[in-house]
Amino acid sequence: MTQNTARKNEQTTPPGKAHVLTLPTQAAHADRQPHNYERWLVAKLMRMAGSPPIRFRLWNGDVIDPDNCEAQFVIHLKDPKALYSLVANPNLAFGDLYSAGRLDVEGDLPELMEALYRSVHQAKQQWPRWLDALWRNHNPRSTGISEAKENIHHHYDLGNEFYSLWLDQAAMQYTCAYYEQPDLTLEQAQLAKLEHVCRKLRLKPGMTVVEAGCGWGGLARYMARHYGVKVYSYNISRAQLAYAREEAKRQGLDHLVTYVEDDYRNISGDYDAFVSIGMLEHVGKDNYPALSELIKRCLKPGGLALLHSIGRNRPMLMNAWIEKRIFPGAYPPSIGEFMSICEHSDFSVLDVENLRLHYAQTLRHWMERFTENQNRVTDMYDAHFTRAWQMYLAGSIAAFRAGSLQLFQVVFSHGNNNQLPQNRRDIYASPAAPEGV
Amino acid sequence: MTQNTARKNEQTTPPGKAHVLTLPTQAAHADRQPHNYERWLVAKLMRMAGSPPIRFRLWNGDVIDPDNCEAQFVIHLKDPKALYSLVANPNLAFGDLYSAGRLDVEGDLPELMEALYRSVHQAKQQWPRWLDALWRNHNPRSTGISEAKENIHHHYDLGNEFYSLWLDQAAMQYTCAYYEQPDLTLEQAQLAKLEHVCRKLRLKPGMTVVEAGCGWGGLARYMARHYGVKVYSYNISRAQLAYAREEAKRQGLDHLVTYVEDDYRNISGDYDAFVSIGMLEHVGKDNYPALSELIKRCLKPGGLALLHSIGRNRPMLMNAWIEKRIFPGAYPPSIGEFMSICEHSDFSVLDVENLRLHYAQTLRHWMERFTENQNRVTDMYDAHFTRAWQMYLAGSIAAFRAGSLQLFQVVFSHGNNNQLPQNRRDIYASPAAPEGV
Repeated sequence: MTQNTARKNEQTTPPGKAHVLTLPTQAAHADRQPHNYERWLVAKLMRMAGSPPIRFRLWNGDVIDPDNCEAQFVIHLKDPKALYSLVANPNLAFGDLYSAGRLDVEGDLPELMEALYRSVHQAKQQWPRWLDALWRNHNPRSTGISEAKENIHHHYDLGNEFYSLWLDQAAMQYTCAYYEQPDLTLEQAQLAKLEHVCRKLRLKPGMTVVEAGCGWGGLARYMARHYGVKVYSYNISRAQLAYAREEAKRQGLDHLVTYVEDDYRNISGDYDAFVSIGMLEHVGKDNYPALSELIKRCLKPGGLALLHSIGRNRPMLMNAWIEKRIFPGAYPPSIGEFMSICEHSDFSVLDVENLRLHYAQTLRHWMERFTENQNRVTDMYDAHFTRAWQMYLAGSIAAFRAGSLQLFQVVFSHGNNNQLPQNRRDIYASPAAPEGV
Repeated sequence: MTQNTARKNEQTTPPGKAHVLTLPTQAAHADRQPHNYERWLVAKLMRMAGSPPIRFRLWNGDVIDPDNCEAQFVIHLKDPKALYSLVANPNLAFGDLYSAGRLDVEGDLPELMEALYRSVHQAKQQWPRWLDALWRNHNPRSTGISEAKENIHHHYDLGNEFYSLWLDQAAMQYTCAYYEQPDLTLEQAQLAKLEHVCRKLRLKPGMTVVEAGCGWGGLARYMARHYGVKVYSYNISRAQLAYAREEAKRQGLDHLVTYVEDDYRNISGDYDAFVSIGMLEHVGKDNYPALSELIKRCLKPGGLALLHSIGRNRPMLMNAWIEKRIFPGAYPPSIGEFMSICEHSDFSVLDVENLRLHYAQTLRHWMERFTENQNRVTDMYDAHFTRAWQMYLAGSIAAFRAGSLQLFQVVFSHGNNNQLPQNRRDIYASPAAPEGV
């Protein structure tokens, strides 16, 4: 495992104007000279990607800087086949090659990815159809009631110990935090998020809340402790639920919080509030109408609902590698698709807030802690796993910063509900973040 | 002209259980006995409308209370033909008959309309297809560049004197006010709206703003006076522009504010902010992509845009009478259609706020002032005009209260803009409403 920070110091290449630089390389393919058409492929690849400020170092040490751009980033391809995979479908191959250590980068990984995303986003508009078809992302796999279990198990049941290495120590939140001030700690920002959500729902003691997808149960416990509400939280990740129940008991909140091991589709009852933080990404577009009808059924006439989800500015498939390796079945809705959930049941959308850059900052904090603990992660799994997760975290930072991912918090009510807050001033009456956590 | 308040006192009918009550009537058709099938038609009409708490008083004084509902409201039909028009298409006929004085109501007009809307909204879901077709609203007329002029002239060029009788005296705002506190005066709430919009746009001295559709120019002058920005405001209503220019001159703001007599489609240049308050309703769905591209073109990379418009929870045509008699070409977008404007140009939606009940309150204030001045309005136009406008104001209050109309304020930026406000706390740092206006 090479650390990015360590790698930075290794960068001895002067920012030269030379088209091809020869750098020392320790790879197994050091003697294999790149063919001319391989050089051409790299140049073509970069042009198609909109000429991002990136140079390529090939397996033998040759550096290709097709646009002579004095690039701040270097991608190192360690074998010729890596190049062919990359050309065939970079969306999928980039992550796989990085995880396998066959592709490496010099420079800050999230920054390189951001530069790449920004550049590709522009360039894409000019792509010929065949390229669009070749470099495609695929439709997310099914999120039916039995497949969902498998999808969720794949990611969320990796082990509570693993997640506790790099998530916040305050509430084990694996969703976007709320940086009320830019210099908050991860713990403060996650607690501020929980508080912000409770304020948006205008919780009052004695209310009942249902939560679809509760992670390690932090929101439910926060609501019970700080707002005196009764919470029913649904989840299908067994590992998360075990943690959640133990914590509720330990904190003496189990009389207020019930964690239900069941699919959100089986929620029943009447509640003053419906909340779901970071589950919609896993619901799948086909299931939006049913989700909408479910909320319609179980939200009391005067109740408020809040959905918090990663989203898009326009409909777009999830990156192939993320969908395949990290989040099976994931699909972040565009803002219009998100609104279709509300339109379907004549809900009245009251408040939308976009916390895109807050997610980039959350992920930065996660990545720092992950990198501090990378040796332990590698001991628990292997180096391939560690690198895959670093790529996932870095790519996510980049996507939120480049604007290809958004984070929407949407509050809505039944269409004929006039028991609405006068405005949003109450949400901002005092700081949401606790001091010094 | 009969005043609603006066009419209330005339209501001498005891809240009886009798199916048919005979009341005194002064109408010309007093001797014409209703046929049995006419009674049946009234009963059928009410059932189709979901049995709202409304009785019917016919031309000869007979009262029909089909559901024996001890209704708090009475609709008075003054001639048999009025009944037939109503049955043929109540969406269109109700307003026309009321304007002509051939239909009158006992009870608070907005409240009666709200009860009716709530009831019809429910009942509609069970309507047979033929009824849906019969009682249809029609597609809005064209909002092409030449027709738009005619549409806007029809409504907004009625005369500044007319509007000044009942709009706020502070800024002549003919759009939803912002009741930061429920007991604000109309003047305070309209100034709070202007302030709220400026805060959402994060205006700073020296910025340039372009405004599409400026009414009597109040927002532009407010921005110039309070935020020291340069504003270019477009409008095609000549009467409004004359007023706007005179006011800017009188207030010594004409070096900062330029009112342009032109269609919004001809906006050019680069601006730090794009704002449009209450114009989108007149743009027409077909023109959303072009509007989106226009904003894309003229918003600087770090700029913010704000669109404020009446909207819907789901796509629905404008009420036939409003579209025909009051607002030709009007179409309030659903939240999804609204978002399509943002999706089209890859904008990032940052903030959506729904001010639905604020519009109901704004309209209540307008209607009070309108009613105080109804004799002057009748002198300026005629009784038919006065009653049409009372119906329009009352129906609008009802639509916002019943949830069939929404008021969305949407803030968005270019998709790749990272110069975003940290959060929304700054908007609520101090009251937006001035004291004692």
